[in-house]
Amino acid sequence: MQALRFENNKLRVAEIPGPSADSEARVRVLRSGICNTDLEIVKGYAGFEGTIGHEFVGIVEKSTDRLDLVGKRVVGEINAGCGVCSLCFSGDPRHCERRTVLGIHGRDGAHAEYLTLPSRNLIEVPKSVSDEEAVFAEPLAAAFGITEQVEIISEMSVAVVGDGKLGLLCALALNQRTGRLILIGKHRSKLQIATRQGVETVLLEDAVKLGRRFDVVVEASGSESGFETALDLVRPRGKIVLKSTFHGKPTWQATRVVVDEISIIGSRCGRFAPALELLTSKKVGVLDLISEEYGLTEGVKAMKRAEEKGVLKVLLKMNG
Amino acid sequence: MQALRFENNKLRVAEIPGPSADSEARVRVLRSGICNTDLEIVKGYAGFEGTIGHEFVGIVEKSTDRLDLVGKRVVGEINAGCGVCSLCFSGDPRHCERRTVLGIHGRDGAHAEYLTLPSRNLIEVPKSVSDEEAVFAEPLAAAFGITEQVEIISEMSVAVVGDGKLGLLCALALNQRTGRLILIGKHRSKLQIATRQGVETVLLEDAVKLGRRFDVVVEASGSESGFETALDLVRPRGKIVLKSTFHGKPTWQATRVVVDEISIIGSRCGRFAPALELLTSKKVGVLDLISEEYGLTEGVKAMKRAEEKGVLKVLLKMNG
Repeated sequence: MQALRFENNKLRVAEIPGPSADSEARVRVLRSGICNTDLEIVKGYAGFEGTIGHEFVGIVEKSTDRLDLVGKRVVGEINAGCGVCSLCFSGDPRHCERRTVLGIHGRDGAHAEYLTLPSRNLIEVPKSVSDEEAVFAEPLAAAFGITEQVEIISEMSVAVVGDGKLGLLCALALNQRTGRLILIGKHRSKLQIATRQGVETVLLEDAVKLGRRFDVVVEASGSESGFETALDLVRPRGKIVLKSTFHGKPTWQATRVVVDEISIIGSRCGRFAPALELLTSKKVGVLDLISEEYGLTEGVKAMKRAEEKGVLKVLLKMNG
Repeated sequence: MQALRFENNKLRVAEIPGPSADSEARVRVLRSGICNTDLEIVKGYAGFEGTIGHEFVGIVEKSTDRLDLVGKRVVGEINAGCGVCSLCFSGDPRHCERRTVLGIHGRDGAHAEYLTLPSRNLIEVPKSVSDEEAVFAEPLAAAFGITEQVEIISEMSVAVVGDGKLGLLCALALNQRTGRLILIGKHRSKLQIATRQGVETVLLEDAVKLGRRFDVVVEASGSESGFETALDLVRPRGKIVLKSTFHGKPTWQATRVVVDEISIIGSRCGRFAPALELLTSKKVGVLDLISEEYGLTEGVKAMKRAEEKGVLKVLLKMNG
């Protein structure tokens, strides 16, 4: 089968044997999405080699332990835990010490014709959700996952810093929880995607005028200056959510964090069920976030495109 | 009266008029304690000019609105709020936007023969607590204040990084809440102060062996490397409490915070009542933390001594 692989510091579409893990479900990938984490991996930061990609929708072709899933269209939790530790036992493999992560850590990923995952990781996609929408289940889960760690209720003021893919999804998802959310970004055209769905937006250059008044600020810009912006917006005893995985070593004014007693909360993955619910109910529209779609054979070109300024989500479409 | 003042970038004991704020209580200071924040102020970081010092015990000599306090021995909350904003109204002036802070911000401090504070800031000290103990009420409140922001229960594992004054107080205070606390520091002699009160201790060089397993790690070392040590000890989804106000701009591995979904919580001041309770019940012994005591006239010398390596709390004693 074809797969988009990063090996020996080189990205290429390669012909490799199909996956053969009999204990896991085999999924024929329909579409996959390119995430900024993929771009980071290709820069060599994560130390991962193999097939990249972790956002996907596909059809289950084989499962030895969940026959009911065969033929179903699914998305999937990307963390595969050991299955026996206390975290896995409680149904949350996301911090299992021995976990593998689809296309990120110890496990071939989704930019390929086929992938395997434990069947317990797969969730059926409702018919009313299109393939193009379903491929957003993973990043939308990550965005909405903020609410697992930080209580966001309707009275709370929330600012999201960054109008890239992740920032937009965070704004659209959290806008479901509070009527007092503002998305801050540099690009009018990107901000307008959120505006069309009822999100209030402000250009970054005007953001300082907002003052230190937000209960929660989500840093989703992926830039080192994003954290300083967040510090300028959060109220004393407020919370900053760090959402971007980027490999900088930002400096920070430790004194401000201590004197204003601010909490900084790292947030990575979220649960898929609430994300699918947001897509099914059409409360969050994601199609406007798609910039372009490529065939899997054009995977390298697609990755280059995804890296260009102003580009949002780039999808890969596998041949049926 | 005499006061230890920092003005025009110079520290000296000066003869100044006694305080005259008639709307506030007038306190004759018995003893004051030198805090690392005082040392930072003298480095010019805080932009403060005037009488320094914020840890004290004294006798109320005058109060127009709380006659019952006159003649009483008191300690005092150092944040003086505007009295009318929502934070002050809720009884917590610590984050009032218009607050002044004793010897730190907009208000002359405690290394002086007299100070004034709003009478609502003052709390009577029980007879069984000596002057030398009472002067620790403020830093002990700051240490125990961690429990206002982070729930610490008996099953939780807690590490405190730093065996200076603040680290020792944090360890002694939080050891009341959990039987699974470890204090980590560089100095055997300082660690022994905590050991004598039943705290488990480990030398910093051996701390990496402990692994990433602590629910809560308190960074109280005041050094830029302290945060990296804390990251090496905290478990995924655990909490790091930043307790030291220091003026570095540490770098940090943002990725680790996000991938392990760690929370970082800035913590500054705490409430005095629980701290006085710890002193009254003798559950926390502070006398071992006193390195030396000077007269107020020797204030400059006392500050120099406080800055030396290995020195813990230096007290100033005012003439009766």
